[in-house]
Amino acid sequence: MRFSSRVDVTDPNAISLAEARAKADGMALMKLNDSNPTRHGLAPAGIPNVYEANPRGPVAARRALADFLGRDGSGNRDGGPDVNGPVDPDRLYLLSSTSQAYSWLIKLLCDPGDVVLAPKPGYPLIESIARLEAVDVAEYQLLYDGSWMIDVARIEELLDEYGERARALVLINPNNPTGSYVHPDERERLVRLCAERQVAIIADEVFFDYALDPLPGRRRLAGEGGVLTFALDGFSKMLAAPHAKVGWIEVSGPDSDVAEAMRRLDVIADDFLPMSDLIADRIPELLDAAPAQTERVRERTRGNLDRLRRLLADDDLGITDVLHAEGGWNVLLRFPSAIDESELVLSLIDRWRATAQPGFFFDMTSNGYVAVSLLPEPAVFEDGVRRLLAAVAAALEA
Amino acid sequence: MRFSSRVDVTDPNAISLAEARAKADGMALMKLNDSNPTRHGLAPAGIPNVYEANPRGPVAARRALADFLGRDGSGNRDGGPDVNGPVDPDRLYLLSSTSQAYSWLIKLLCDPGDVVLAPKPGYPLIESIARLEAVDVAEYQLLYDGSWMIDVARIEELLDEYGERARALVLINPNNPTGSYVHPDERERLVRLCAERQVAIIADEVFFDYALDPLPGRRRLAGEGGVLTFALDGFSKMLAAPHAKVGWIEVSGPDSDVAEAMRRLDVIADDFLPMSDLIADRIPELLDAAPAQTERVRERTRGNLDRLRRLLADDDLGITDVLHAEGGWNVLLRFPSAIDESELVLSLIDRWRATAQPGFFFDMTSNGYVAVSLLPEPAVFEDGVRRLLAAVAAALEA
Repeated sequence: MRFSSRVDVTDPNAISLAEARAKADGMALMKLNDSNPTRHGLAPAGIPNVYEANPRGPVAARRALADFLGRDGSGNRDGGPDVNGPVDPDRLYLLSSTSQAYSWLIKLLCDPGDVVLAPKPGYPLIESIARLEAVDVAEYQLLYDGSWMIDVARIEELLDEYGERARALVLINPNNPTGSYVHPDERERLVRLCAERQVAIIADEVFFDYALDPLPGRRRLAGEGGVLTFALDGFSKMLAAPHAKVGWIEVSGPDSDVAEAMRRLDVIADDFLPMSDLIADRIPELLDAAPAQTERVRERTRGNLDRLRRLLADDDLGITDVLHAEGGWNVLLRFPSAIDESELVLSLIDRWRATAQPGFFFDMTSNGYVAVSLLPEPAVFEDGVRRLLAAVAAALEA
Repeated sequence: MRFSSRVDVTDPNAISLAEARAKADGMALMKLNDSNPTRHGLAPAGIPNVYEANPRGPVAARRALADFLGRDGSGNRDGGPDVNGPVDPDRLYLLSSTSQAYSWLIKLLCDPGDVVLAPKPGYPLIESIARLEAVDVAEYQLLYDGSWMIDVARIEELLDEYGERARALVLINPNNPTGSYVHPDERERLVRLCAERQVAIIADEVFFDYALDPLPGRRRLAGEGGVLTFALDGFSKMLAAPHAKVGWIEVSGPDSDVAEAMRRLDVIADDFLPMSDLIADRIPELLDAAPAQTERVRERTRGNLDRLRRLLADDDLGITDVLHAEGGWNVLLRFPSAIDESELVLSLIDRWRATAQPGFFFDMTSNGYVAVSLLPEPAVFEDGVRRLLAAVAAALEA
C-alpha cells in the first residue's frame, strides 16, 4: 500500500532506542524532561486523570468500545451474526469526529494533488475536507433504478484514469442522502479492485445501524480483511449525540499494510492527541446508553417513513414520491422535473416558512429532488411534509 | 493579507441568502432537512445539551473565557496593566489543542509548498504539523549572549528569500526550551516587518504566565493590532491540564484582515466543530480554578529553578551551568562541549537510570546542552539533577 510523504517515519535515534530497551527490560527511567504536570502532582481537582498520552486514545476507553463493538456485532449490529469476530482495542483510534478521521486518513494516504474517490449524490463535507488537505475528489455515481447501486465500472475507469494519484475509495455505508448500503456483490468487486490497485477503503458507517428496510446480507465494512480498510463510526449518530464529539477509526486489512498504516497513523495521532479525559472517562457509561438510543432514533425514522408514505399516498396530486431508502436519517423526495427545485425551496421559504435542501446540494444529476430528515417529532414532521406538498401543488399551478 | 486556496469561500446560493434574510427579519423557518437529533427531542440523558454547532465554539463558554482573559489582563496576566483592553468573545475560537490551532492556521494561510518561519532552538512539533499540511518550515535563530534574543535581521532575510511563499511567522512567547519572551523592541520590529510583507503572526503564548524572573514590559501578543495576529493559549499549561484538551485562538489585527481571516477560519472550524459540550459545559468552572493552578505551578517552577542554581553552585566540578531562562517550564543546562551530549544521555540511561533530551533534539547549533523540566516534586527534581551531575563528572573522567 502507498502512503503519503507527509508523515515523518525516520528511524528512532540512539537515545530513543536505549529508552525503549530499558522499558522492555522493565527498568523504570526517571525522566528529567517530563513536562507533563499530571505526573508531578500538579493536575487540577475535578478532571479525571488517566492521562497517558496514548496516541490511539486512553486504553480503558478503547477496551470498553472494543467490547461493545464485538458484543453487539461489528459485522452487523442490526441483529445479524457477528461475521467479523471480536474487535481488537489496539486497532481503534479514538478522536473527535468523522471529520477529523477523514482529515487524518487523507493526510496518511494522500500527498497534495492526489485523489480520493467519493460518492455522488453525497454530502459536500468530504470535498471540503479534501480541499483543506490540498487533495482532489473524483466523484463516482450512484445510479437509481428503483433502488440505488454503485457504478463499479465507473470506479474502475476512474482508478485507471488517475493511476498512482488515486489513493482512497470512500464508501458511505449507507450513503447519505440516498440511504443506500454497499451491497454484498458491490463489496466483493470493490474490495478486489482496491486490493489489485493498492487503494485503501475509507468506510463511513455512522448510519449503519439505522436500517429502514430488511436487506439480507447487509454487513459493515469494519473488520474487512481483503484490503487496507479504515472504518469510521461515532456517537454522533449511534447515540444521537453530535455534541459529545466522540468518533473512532477501526483499522483492518492485510497484516503488513495494517502495521505500516498504524505506525504512520500513530505519528499523526501523537501530534494531536484529541481525546479529552473529560470525555474518555464517560465513554463506558455512554456506551451503555447506546443500544436504547439507537433503538429510539430507529423507531422515529421508521415511523416517519411510514408517515411520509401515507401522506404521499393521500396527497390529491399524487405526483411526489419517495426514492427507495434502505437506511439512514434522510430520504429524497422526487417531484415533476417541470418544477425547478431551487424555485420550489425559495417559495417554501417565502410562503410556507419552511426550508429544505434541493437535490443540487448533493450533486444529483438532474432537477426535481428535495431531501427531508426523518428525525422530527411526528406532528412536526407531518406539518413539514404538508407544507412541502402545498408548495409543490402551488408550483404546478403557476 | 494573503490566504490559501484551500478554503471554499464561494458566494452563498439563492436559498442560503433567502434563509439569511428570513433570519434577519426574525422569521423562524421550519427546517425539513434538520438532521441534528438534539433538536428533535432525541438527545441522550446525561450530556449537557447546548449544541448550537457554532464554528467558534459554544457562545456561553467563549463569553466566560473572554471575561476571564479580560479581567485577568490579556496584555499581561502576570500582574501588569491590561494594556490590550477587553477581549471580544466573537474573536475567540475554541478547539482541542494548540496542535489543532497550528493545523487550522496553516490551512488558512498556506498552500502546499508555502513556508512558515519558526524559532530554533524549538520543539519539533511545529515542523511535524507543517509537514502534515504539506508546508515547509524555515527556521530562524535565537541567539544566546547571557540572554536570548531573536535574530530579526535573519527573519528579514528569510522573508526576502521566500517572498510570496512566506505566509506566517511563528513566535513562541516565551519560547521552549529557551524560556525567552519576545522583547518589546523585537516585537515592534517584527510587527512592522510582518505588516509590510503581509505575513501573519502566529503567537503561541501557552507559557506566558510562567515568568521565572522580572522582565519589565513583558506583554502578550494576543490583541496585537498592527498586523493579523493569531494568539494561541489553552488549559494544557494555564491549568496544568493537558488531558482536558481545551485550547483557543484569539484573532486580532487590522479590521479588514481580521474579518476576512475569520470568514475563512469559520469554514475550517465548521468542518470540524471540535468542542464537545461535555467539555464546554465545564469551562466556566475550570476557569475559576485557573489562577490558583497557575500560581501553584509557578511556585513549583520558581522553587525548582532556585534549587537547581543552589545544586549547581554546590557542585564540586562547577562546570555545569543553566542558561538564563525568563519563563516557561523547562531550562537548558550547559556542560563542557568536550562531552558529547548524546553519549551523556546514553550513560545517564545505562548507569543512572534517568533520561533527558539533549540539545540536538531542539536544533541547538552546538553540542553541550540538555533540557530539564522544572515541574517535578522538589525531592525528585533534586535527585534527577544529582544524577545528571554525576553523569557529567563521570563523562569528564572518561
